[in-house]
Amino acid sequence: MTLFDLRNLPYGVFSTGDGVRRIGVRLGDAVLDLSRAEEQDLILAGGALRQPTLNVLMALGRPLWSAIRARVVQLAPTLPAVPLADVELHLPFEVADYTDFYSSEHHATQVSRILRPERPGLQPNWKHLPIGYHGRAGTVVVSGTPVERPAGQLGPGEFGPSRRLDVEAEVGFVVGVPGRRISTADFAEHVFGVVLVNDWSARDIQAFEYQPLGPFLGKSFATSVSPWVVPLEALSGALVPAIAQDPVPAEYLTPSGDGLDLSLTVDWNGTTVSSPPFAQMYWTPAQQLAHLTVNGASVRTGDLFASGTVSGPERAQAGSFLELTWNGTEPVPLDDGSTRGFLLDGDTVTISATAPGVDGAPIGLGSVTGTVCR
Amino acid sequence: MTLFDLRNLPYGVFSTGDGVRRIGVRLGDAVLDLSRAEEQDLILAGGALRQPTLNVLMALGRPLWSAIRARVVQLAPTLPAVPLADVELHLPFEVADYTDFYSSEHHATQVSRILRPERPGLQPNWKHLPIGYHGRAGTVVVSGTPVERPAGQLGPGEFGPSRRLDVEAEVGFVVGVPGRRISTADFAEHVFGVVLVNDWSARDIQAFEYQPLGPFLGKSFATSVSPWVVPLEALSGALVPAIAQDPVPAEYLTPSGDGLDLSLTVDWNGTTVSSPPFAQMYWTPAQQLAHLTVNGASVRTGDLFASGTVSGPERAQAGSFLELTWNGTEPVPLDDGSTRGFLLDGDTVTISATAPGVDGAPIGLGSVTGTVCR
Repeated sequence: MTLFDLRNLPYGVFSTGDGVRRIGVRLGDAVLDLSRAEEQDLILAGGALRQPTLNVLMALGRPLWSAIRARVVQLAPTLPAVPLADVELHLPFEVADYTDFYSSEHHATQVSRILRPERPGLQPNWKHLPIGYHGRAGTVVVSGTPVERPAGQLGPGEFGPSRRLDVEAEVGFVVGVPGRRISTADFAEHVFGVVLVNDWSARDIQAFEYQPLGPFLGKSFATSVSPWVVPLEALSGALVPAIAQDPVPAEYLTPSGDGLDLSLTVDWNGTTVSSPPFAQMYWTPAQQLAHLTVNGASVRTGDLFASGTVSGPERAQAGSFLELTWNGTEPVPLDDGSTRGFLLDGDTVTISATAPGVDGAPIGLGSVTGTVCR
Repeated sequence: MTLFDLRNLPYGVFSTGDGVRRIGVRLGDAVLDLSRAEEQDLILAGGALRQPTLNVLMALGRPLWSAIRARVVQLAPTLPAVPLADVELHLPFEVADYTDFYSSEHHATQVSRILRPERPGLQPNWKHLPIGYHGRAGTVVVSGTPVERPAGQLGPGEFGPSRRLDVEAEVGFVVGVPGRRISTADFAEHVFGVVLVNDWSARDIQAFEYQPLGPFLGKSFATSVSPWVVPLEALSGALVPAIAQDPVPAEYLTPSGDGLDLSLTVDWNGTTVSSPPFAQMYWTPAQQLAHLTVNGASVRTGDLFASGTVSGPERAQAGSFLELTWNGTEPVPLDDGSTRGFLLDGDTVTISATAPGVDGAPIGLGSVTGTVCR
């Protein structure tokens, strides 16, 4: 059993020496070349696998996702394969709209204590709806892409590179089938799969700009996603009851749908600094999608919605360095003997996750990594 | 002289009975069929005119935009044409990212008086940077598309159709050439042209949701744009000095670039209710683009950034009904004898604009219209 055996089979887009982008699934340390498999008529998907992104495949809908997955399981030993070490991985899907939620009560509460100590606590709306905002789709990048430190206004008359560059460890959901007013019960008919997300955040730029219209340049410079999209079907063993919600939310947010028992780890220059538990998120992914579309807005194939920072109640479960280092005032020690408050140039952050597979043994969501440069 | 003579020549995407989308320019009450003109080798644009959207054309850059425009002027009488009355107009470009600014000092000030009477006035950051946020690209629709009244949470435990549905009269700028860290001086190298925008807004949904991450469902249900993209070159006669800015903004926001003397009108069920003056905007479009990209974020072909509500200092210059009717407390009379605070089902709002052409006589930006339905 590995984290990437037949129970998992995440989808990605890869190229080899010729640079041509092809669809593959990861199996152990190999990539099964599904584009070639469809060229060779081993798998028939109406051309959806002979594409440079997953978008056409994602638009097919759940019955075909299941059928193709079953066919891959059946044929796996005979499918054309490439060693993982020999491929370059690309952004797996063309991002339509990118939205980001704020669904961890622990995160929202801790942030309020750090940034608004004079009146800490959740905003009055927080337990009524999954707070969210739109981010920049054009700067979503694949894991491994260097992240340039952003510059901006840090206060009145003060311009320069961000001095409080942070991460946000999140889980992202990728929409396959378009829709409007999607009920929580229909979540799995529309969502193709799951990625890990690092919503890089410049806290100083964000602090000066965010009133009254929300975060903008403090987050728009880069959002990294993991290269492997884990299909929902592979996560059936990770479904857990959602956190109890009080007050009872509005009807369109019920039933809540499932939580997901994903165990994240955040690694800073090789030191594991935190282990955020996704199962403790207050709002579920199904509630996020229902909320996003309840006003009549449509979602499209390729829409990405992320959970917001995943943080547990403990310091060592923080999904942001803002929380982990208490706004830089309590630096964290790294294994190399140095300490960190916020990100320095050259720092590398890698967010990884595992989940119980269908048999309870873990499968991998892979990782999203990025190195800060100037 | 008409508003759509050879000084103007805005681009759009149209179809006739066969439903095939083609690129055209408006000349008087006709549409010159540029797709057919390129098919007939009358204009050579490397295929950029034989497209169902303007995106390929917009990516060509200013020298080719100018050359193609000059060729259209030269050939206009001989180009294949269709009566405007016989065509259907479509969304002229594929929207990449949609961002929306908040650049009218009069609007921001009036909104603060209405919504925060206990502490009115601009936020401390407002005169330091053009406040903006990301909107939903997937729900940008062309003029004429019906606008369904959104439903949402209007307060704790209160869900239903918005009762304070509003408009925002705005001007949108369409990016042709991608870039990062675009100086104000390079604005015209990147921006292809101008559209009118109605940023429909549900004030009650927005009021409950917007802390702390900004507007979300209150605006994501629909944003309407005019069908004709007026090239910047046609607006050379509309350039005016920007409003004096105090304090002097950060270096990346200087020089400010030009203002634009666009005269908007807002028509509510056939009654002209206001005339917002775009020349009075505090932040210029060049400053908006410089700000959007100063952190390292890229813009792509098809990015749309809108100015924010255009309001002048007078009540009859308000670009939103929130201001015009003082949050519904001072209803406005319509010519049919009725009065309005916010939008009722069946109401139609049309935003139009003109600008001085190269010779001073006005040219038209066309209009963006929409009718509210249930």
